[in-house]
Amino acid sequence: MNVDIGNALASVASPGVSRASLERLDEQVAAAHERIERGMANADHGYEALNLPERTDPDEIRAAVEPVADADTLITVGIGGSSLGAATIVDALESDTETVFLDNVDPEWVSGRLDGLALENAAINVVSRSGTTAETLANFLVVREAFEDAGVDWTERTIVTTGESGPLRDLADRHDLPSLKVPDGVPGRFSALSAVGMVAAAVCGHDLEALLAGAAAERETLSGSLFDCPAYAYGATTYALDGRGAGVNAMMPYAESLETSAEWFAQLWAESLGKDDLGQTPVRALGVTDQHSQLQLYRAGPRDKLVTFVTADADADRSIPTTDVEELAYLGDATLGELLEAEFEATEASLAAAGRPNVRVELEAVDEYELGGFLYGMEAACVLAGELYGVNTFEQPAVEWAKKATRGLLGGGEFEEAKAVAEKTELRVER
Amino acid sequence: MNVDIGNALASVASPGVSRASLERLDEQVAAAHERIERGMANADHGYEALNLPERTDPDEIRAAVEPVADADTLITVGIGGSSLGAATIVDALESDTETVFLDNVDPEWVSGRLDGLALENAAINVVSRSGTTAETLANFLVVREAFEDAGVDWTERTIVTTGESGPLRDLADRHDLPSLKVPDGVPGRFSALSAVGMVAAAVCGHDLEALLAGAAAERETLSGSLFDCPAYAYGATTYALDGRGAGVNAMMPYAESLETSAEWFAQLWAESLGKDDLGQTPVRALGVTDQHSQLQLYRAGPRDKLVTFVTADADADRSIPTTDVEELAYLGDATLGELLEAEFEATEASLAAAGRPNVRVELEAVDEYELGGFLYGMEAACVLAGELYGVNTFEQPAVEWAKKATRGLLGGGEFEEAKAVAEKTELRVER
Repeated sequence: MNVDIGNALASVASPGVSRASLERLDEQVAAAHERIERGMANADHGYEALNLPERTDPDEIRAAVEPVADADTLITVGIGGSSLGAATIVDALESDTETVFLDNVDPEWVSGRLDGLALENAAINVVSRSGTTAETLANFLVVREAFEDAGVDWTERTIVTTGESGPLRDLADRHDLPSLKVPDGVPGRFSALSAVGMVAAAVCGHDLEALLAGAAAERETLSGSLFDCPAYAYGATTYALDGRGAGVNAMMPYAESLETSAEWFAQLWAESLGKDDLGQTPVRALGVTDQHSQLQLYRAGPRDKLVTFVTADADADRSIPTTDVEELAYLGDATLGELLEAEFEATEASLAAAGRPNVRVELEAVDEYELGGFLYGMEAACVLAGELYGVNTFEQPAVEWAKKATRGLLGGGEFEEAKAVAEKTELRVER
Repeated sequence: MNVDIGNALASVASPGVSRASLERLDEQVAAAHERIERGMANADHGYEALNLPERTDPDEIRAAVEPVADADTLITVGIGGSSLGAATIVDALESDTETVFLDNVDPEWVSGRLDGLALENAAINVVSRSGTTAETLANFLVVREAFEDAGVDWTERTIVTTGESGPLRDLADRHDLPSLKVPDGVPGRFSALSAVGMVAAAVCGHDLEALLAGAAAERETLSGSLFDCPAYAYGATTYALDGRGAGVNAMMPYAESLETSAEWFAQLWAESLGKDDLGQTPVRALGVTDQHSQLQLYRAGPRDKLVTFVTADADADRSIPTTDVEELAYLGDATLGELLEAEFEATEASLAAAGRPNVRVELEAVDEYELGGFLYGMEAACVLAGELYGVNTFEQPAVEWAKKATRGLLGGGEFEEAKAVAEKTELRVER
């Protein structure tokens, strides 16, 4: 990926960061890069994620999915980091395999997703590091039962990705299921380029080597200066802008196929940096759609936002038919792709003209290689930003409270947290 | 809808608003309510939207869609306010009619959406007030051509919703198409309860009278005190919290069927209030999915957020099958619906326990009546908030710049804005 931070400079935008400030910040980038390199060399928790281009074995993943390589539908049961990396890859790329992601427990929705499926040709991709994630295990039990009800032997159609031990590991062993290991030292939100993200890609027939090669090429750019490394340029610029008031980071791809990547980015950014009262709030947007929804706010609301555009050269285009309506004649000389491009350039320029900071992340195409680079690049950007903020990038302690409360509420043990639920302060206004 | 603002009180959260402050604010609410009532009585621009429960004629809409009432696929061509209201309604409710919303011009995506459709049984719902929206008109020209290529007479299968004049109005007249009028004085983002939102609902067989009745019941609650009116309670609380530092408003429904409503809300809030450097930034979230993505940030990141939960009693449930795995046994006594409910209560309590403000918006069901009330209630909340901020709620001047630039870039006339695009400041970091 290439990154253009020109519209984040103080000469263009407010908040903005001056060239001189970036040069001063580059000394911190150099120091942070040393820590990152050291963490990678020592395979330290979290930093190990940046070693995945070398660690992940595509042959092992392909071997595990071989029994279900004929699936015409793949049901991935996972949530958060056990789902969003895989979804980003398969939503971005074309495949004949239909993909379903069960990442919520809304009963009507789960039933609706399962009801229409021909389960005899389906496969299950269940992912949970701990093997105890309540939503994932509940949905897995539901899906297993649906397979049984349809007379399909789920043990022949299930791939498990989980940790070294736990209920899912036990189950895989008991039923002799093909299974893969969530790599050690790699938090879920950084695991797209491991089995966690790539089992679905393999079943869909995508080029795993190209995904890893794109990531490896991005890894090659990691260096002691933000001016030499697109990932660090992005991470350092967002950090600098946050410090200058841009607490919101709106990720706005101009390609529908990359819409899910904004969800993935939102988890990466929020869970990694959102601690100690710090961290930008990621916002998921989509060009051109959100020009007609969010642009007014981005251009004229509070000066607390960075807009990150993601662009990708399109493969195919489509002409706009000519019309005899004079006011619309100009459209007939263009294609949808040209309209999309003009809308992007106009939106980017309109923010700059209003002095609103924005950054452009460019992919040369939406393919495995570029996608691998994007996933790796954004992860490296996030790791760098975490170093600059001084937070513990790789933990997410604040989510534990609600997990305990949920378990307590469902009778899964005694937890103080569950009792707090009953003590809610109410101020109700009713119709 | 009912609203519970207990977890936004200063006794629970920081930022929070004290009961005494709410009582002082209530005097401003009373004054704002007078202006709103006056605007409604005079059918003033924007305020007229709050009269839609009485203005919209379901019979007229049903008569217009009658020629395509047999459609098994409805393609809505519109963007922003010409799409999101309709999408919110049809995505929330069950129907045998498949719905497609063309709200982007990505060429691969548009082709992908159209390629699989049996156009002989499809209908087109094209919506643009001005009749000149570039994305909508370009897509309409593409869809028309696709119908022609399939040998289907699009003039028999198209319903037009547009203003009194303009290219789409001319086209409807020329081809004698069934057409409806975007009501005067109602900005797009406030038009869900007019033909703009309800044509799609009518084709899908939803109960238009119940949508309007739900809205009318909410209208009945509008009064001079936030303590008597759920919509004003919501609008006043968000305004008060924004002033105290909660510049972000994360809308988090706990029902997949309401996911699109968060998109609709995001436009309503952003375009109406995002001006004069004011306005909360809406964030679209989804429970339980985003507990595994955004909760860490919401609970431990900057204290700049309000989380708005939307809950709805579910129609149907699904048991979680029992398992002999001891660690998971507690799940087998529950249903997916109970798990969803426990997750919601746990998440709400976990934010309160961390002193993070949150508000609960409750619907009794996801049906036409409750949905009409929700749409109307959030619109009234937004109008009230606009009065309190003192902004011009019903305009969106900041989006014009990019529209002119786009037109100029495509050769649709001479525009200064298009020239600015070429002058972009670059600071590129390449791989």
